[in-house]
Amino acid sequence: MTTNQLISQIRKKKSFLCIGLDVDLNKIPKHLLKEEDPIFAFNKSIIDATHHLCVAYKPNTAFYEAYGLKGWKSLEKTINYINDKHPEIFTIADAKRGDIGNTSSMYAKAFFEDLAFDSVTVAPYMGKDSVEPFLAFENKHTILLALTSNQGAFDFQTKTIEGKELYKHVLETSKTWENSHNLMYVVGATKAEYFADIRKIIPDSFLLVPGVGAQGGNLHDVCKYGMSANIGLLINSSRGIIYASNKEDFAQAAAVKASDMQKEMEGFIN
Amino acid sequence: MTTNQLISQIRKKKSFLCIGLDVDLNKIPKHLLKEEDPIFAFNKSIIDATHHLCVAYKPNTAFYEAYGLKGWKSLEKTINYINDKHPEIFTIADAKRGDIGNTSSMYAKAFFEDLAFDSVTVAPYMGKDSVEPFLAFENKHTILLALTSNQGAFDFQTKTIEGKELYKHVLETSKTWENSHNLMYVVGATKAEYFADIRKIIPDSFLLVPGVGAQGGNLHDVCKYGMSANIGLLINSSRGIIYASNKEDFAQAAAVKASDMQKEMEGFIN
Repeated sequence: MTTNQLISQIRKKKSFLCIGLDVDLNKIPKHLLKEEDPIFAFNKSIIDATHHLCVAYKPNTAFYEAYGLKGWKSLEKTINYINDKHPEIFTIADAKRGDIGNTSSMYAKAFFEDLAFDSVTVAPYMGKDSVEPFLAFENKHTILLALTSNQGAFDFQTKTIEGKELYKHVLETSKTWENSHNLMYVVGATKAEYFADIRKIIPDSFLLVPGVGAQGGNLHDVCKYGMSANIGLLINSSRGIIYASNKEDFAQAAAVKASDMQKEMEGFIN
Repeated sequence: MTTNQLISQIRKKKSFLCIGLDVDLNKIPKHLLKEEDPIFAFNKSIIDATHHLCVAYKPNTAFYEAYGLKGWKSLEKTINYINDKHPEIFTIADAKRGDIGNTSSMYAKAFFEDLAFDSVTVAPYMGKDSVEPFLAFENKHTILLALTSNQGAFDFQTKTIEGKELYKHVLETSKTWENSHNLMYVVGATKAEYFADIRKIIPDSFLLVPGVGAQGGNLHDVCKYGMSANIGLLINSSRGIIYASNKEDFAQAAAVKASDMQKEMEGFIN
């Protein structure tokens, strides 16, 4: 999917909501556990109920890998279902990968070709040659960790190097990499006051923003400081939407929560 | 596996060799492609031919994920084969994972429980709460990226923060984390002159050292500057061993290369 197609979907749906499909078998409604593939059954219901309210889905690969082969199969069925039924939706493999060059190429192949995601999250610690193999895929997007939403973000990401925080070095350096137009960035909503500085470095890039809701971030502040001329935001919510109810009405409850967020977002787009 | 069991294996085999099982279907002998599971068939032959010469095997997960479900199945068969036939061998899932706390717990479950690896490599960018969930598993080992073997290591890892390089901050900070006794570190052989400084910070920790051979690192220098009282090194070689031949004799050729390295290592242990 091109960035322009994503922007056009955001304007059409008046939503920049991304729904995180982080499925934990201990948290989904009990009646689904008797399904042959409870994870996929859960995702399918959530997707059927919410696809008109969001522009992106983001399965975090950890939740699938934890169930081994069966989990990987559920991930494959989930991405195939989205691509078949709702090809207009932007898909994110939240995998936080990154390795030396030839190895990163294999990860890119895994997520862009084998699983056919539109994008993948990548960690910057190993630098340029660990990220460029992902960037080589045209109309695929590499979402680089910049400033994450967790407490540990303050351990290294905000440390100062030559008068500037590490995450700003990551932003600036990444702009010099080949095919950097295929970059987006992860910036946590819990640090909304940082968005103004970030927009000085990357005025137009899309930001994937976790941490609204369960982790305490605030949509108003993120939009105030982080929105670009073309919106430039994908706000992720996982637990707040998908676990809105653990009863038989879980999908409808998720749709209500997603609809609340979409309506709030509509106000910021207009 | 405990660290003491690993040390005892190193002394018994007079080897601190780790063999990287990074299987690329374009590089393995053609006759294996007609096997039902060519990746596992390749790994099984390599393991049968080299297990007495090395103390660790390290599949890099990228090479398995690139082949989707089939690849994950091959990874599962490979780790099960090693654990069944050679439980004395230390196993490393070279996965370079790391995410917010509850998500890292899922990755830990994937590699320590579902796949039963002894250790997993983890990226430090997201800080303490992204690593501690791995450290909570006793007699499992978390191998934190410190200074990697690629050119991109100089993009961020060697940048100076308050008079000290980022990778040294990673080493020092990680020592304060809960269950830090379960930490090992990745330090590339291509930067052997850094080992002396690193040993001042972590005198006893095990270091997983990629980059000897194909990437240009030098075993003599790594041992000179990096070896601890209890050896404290696992030297990884992947391509130099497993692709020593792409003919029917590939496993014997791998054993010859592994034996050469083991003999060289024996000289440094005595």
